[in-house]
Amino acid sequence: METNRLEAFSDGVIAIIITIMVLELRVPHGSDLGTLRPLLPVFLTYALSFIYVGIYWNNHHHLLKTARGVTAGIMWANLHLLFWLSLFPFVTGWMGENHFTALPSACYGVVLFMAAVSYKILQSLIVRLHGESSRLAETLGSDVKGKLSPILYAIAIGVSFIQPWLAGSIYVLVALMWFIPDRRLERSMDRGA
Amino acid sequence: METNRLEAFSDGVIAIIITIMVLELRVPHGSDLGTLRPLLPVFLTYALSFIYVGIYWNNHHHLLKTARGVTAGIMWANLHLLFWLSLFPFVTGWMGENHFTALPSACYGVVLFMAAVSYKILQSLIVRLHGESSRLAETLGSDVKGKLSPILYAIAIGVSFIQPWLAGSIYVLVALMWFIPDRRLERSMDRGA
Amino acid sequence: METNRLEAFSDGVIAIIITIMVLELRVPHGSDLGTLRPLLPVFLTYALSFIYVGIYWNNHHHLLKTARGVTAGIMWANLHLLFWLSLFPFVTGWMGENHFTALPSACYGVVLFMAAVSYKILQSLIVRLHGESSRLAETLGSDVKGKLSPILYAIAIGVSFIQPWLAGSIYVLVALMWFIPDRRLERSMDRGA
Amino acid sequence: METNRLEAFSDGVIAIIITIMVLELRVPHGSDLGTLRPLLPVFLTYALSFIYVGIYWNNHHHLLKTARGVTAGIMWANLHLLFWLSLFPFVTGWMGENHFTALPSACYGVVLFMAAVSYKILQSLIVRLHGESSRLAETLGSDVKGKLSPILYAIAIGVSFIQPWLAGSIYVLVALMWFIPDRRLERSMDRGA
Repeated sequence: METNRLEAFSDGVIAIIITIMVLELRVPHGSDLGTLRPLLPVFLTYALSFIYVGIYWNNHHHLLKTARGVTAGIMWANLHLLFWLSLFPFVTGWMGENHFTALPSACYGVVLFMAAVSYKILQSLIVRLHGESSRLAETLGSDVKGKLSPILYAIAIGVSFIQPWLAGSIYVLVALMWFIPDRRLERSMDRGA
Repeated sequence: METNRLEAFSDGVIAIIITIMVLELRVPHGSDLGTLRPLLPVFLTYALSFIYVGIYWNNHHHLLKTARGVTAGIMWANLHLLFWLSLFPFVTGWMGENHFTALPSACYGVVLFMAAVSYKILQSLIVRLHGESSRLAETLGSDVKGKLSPILYAIAIGVSFIQPWLAGSIYVLVALMWFIPDRRLERSMDRGA
Repeated sequence: METNRLEAFSDGVIAIIITIMVLELRVPHGSDLGTLRPLLPVFLTYALSFIYVGIYWNNHHHLLKTARGVTAGIMWANLHLLFWLSLFPFVTGWMGENHFTALPSACYGVVLFMAAVSYKILQSLIVRLHGESSRLAETLGSDVKGKLSPILYAIAIGVSFIQPWLAGSIYVLVALMWFIPDRRLERSMDRGA
Repeated sequence: METNRLEAFSDGVIAIIITIMVLELRVPHGSDLGTLRPLLPVFLTYALSFIYVGIYWNNHHHLLKTARGVTAGIMWANLHLLFWLSLFPFVTGWMGENHFTALPSACYGVVLFMAAVSYKILQSLIVRLHGESSRLAETLGSDVKGKLSPILYAIAIGVSFIQPWLAGSIYVLVALMWFIPDRRLERSMDRGA
């Protein structure tokens, strides 16, 4: 029951983040094709961020379903994750408007990195509550994707200052890697339910 | 139970989309009647989009009530639908501010078209989960409205470049056609419950 | 169960409306007392609208608790109500920024009037579903406040063009009249539950 | 059940407030490091306000879990609290953009003060419903933090006009004091459940 309200609140915040990002796609003041062209990178960044937030919602959903209780630590770890997710609209807009230049691209990576780290912290706290030998810990296993992502983000942050477009490609790549939701949890849950 | 959270999240996103659209109706800087006149097309487009989003919410509500489970595919098909719905505020604002000129009117059609297609995909995935011979498949039957809408949107996109106001009329027409919620599902549910 | 999702969606929309209104209270570009003065009418209008939306949420909450089912008509009557409520941020911002001049003040009244009418329609549809002799119909009784409000709004619309501040006073007065939530329903529910 | 909808609505409003605040962090028009520097105070204020709203959500969550019923008074006390919380985005943006100058810093304190007072009122009404000898009243005990906070805010308001940065430090201090959620309630609930 406690988990329910944490889920509901997180759902609310994530729903607002995913929708508010579209406000960076500002209505242009003309109506010919030329006015749409500068919006293309903003649109592409929006689509990428939409997928990222969607991935977080998906995985968050599966993770919290496995959690049987909520401690003060889990609550704050969850708010910490939401804080970094809430910066998505800002970095998305900044990167989109500046056509993937160095600093905005690096900042996008920093937010992705921090969101990944804060998700990892939340996961650890929930696993700790269940015990290292629990089904959740077992299911997560080595958690290759969860460990690889922050490393790739860190590389992309550095790459941003050399070749921003390459950094952008890494962000797309990681998104594709995660696109397939956490089947391990899903499968385990199916077995459980 | 899984369906519940998908519903709740979709409700959240749709609620935000429908409300955020009103922000395109910008508070004018005067207080005489002349300042309201340019807002009239924005208001009309807002009302039209409100009805469209309302229709999607209605039908989405009935569709998900029939779904007994949520697969990863359904989750992503749902996010795909929400993505296109999230572009409503942008195209609504753009069409309204440019008084139904060609390109904005066509873009409005593209978003309507893609939303209709993504709804169709979501529906197919839910039907597939239940089996083609299920009550849901039976209820949907030939799904004339669902098949007709994308065709009409496609026509309207083309018509936008010849006579934008005619395209606008098609959008209004399709909205009226859908205004009556999916009674087939409703009736079937009543029989079921 | 059906009622639940209608409630949840309405709650979402109303929560967004009530919060989005505050965006009209724009952060000024200075930091001395003079920069706050022009914000005072905006703040007062915001507080008034906050109370109005709060009243609607309260009464809507009590009304839907009594509803045992949701028809297509009720769904659309509810969306109709949400449509007029969604115009609160616009008219609130406009009236606030123009210091209660004639036209913005009249428009504020029009939105209040239409919201009251659409609430009345929703109420009638729910009563009709239960039957005129039902406990709900009995509880509502003569519904003096519900009948008086639109009349007072209509008067205030006319008064706006003569003495806008008087119209504003009527809006405050009606808000005070409704401030006390629909105790009839509350009392009846207590008896029922 | 009644409590549920009050919780859900409050969650919605708080989720929107916490997310809308990020909109004050406006996307800059350049992409070099210099464009980020003026955003630093805005970012820091955002982080502080995020923690404050998070604290309110946490404590509100624990408080409402103990409430067994909702009276009209509790409903309005709750809306009153939401009203002051809704002003967080405004004062956060104003203080951040003006680099913690006197008046914005004092206004931030006024909103914190009013939010604390309105929370206290809500708490009292819920305690009164349960009776002074109830487990809730017992759990809250002397409520040192709840009594100390408004006093500290009041001091900070005065200090703002002498040394705004000192006022800022008080706000950070009180946030840290509250960071640890209301363990008294949590512990009591664990005993109860």
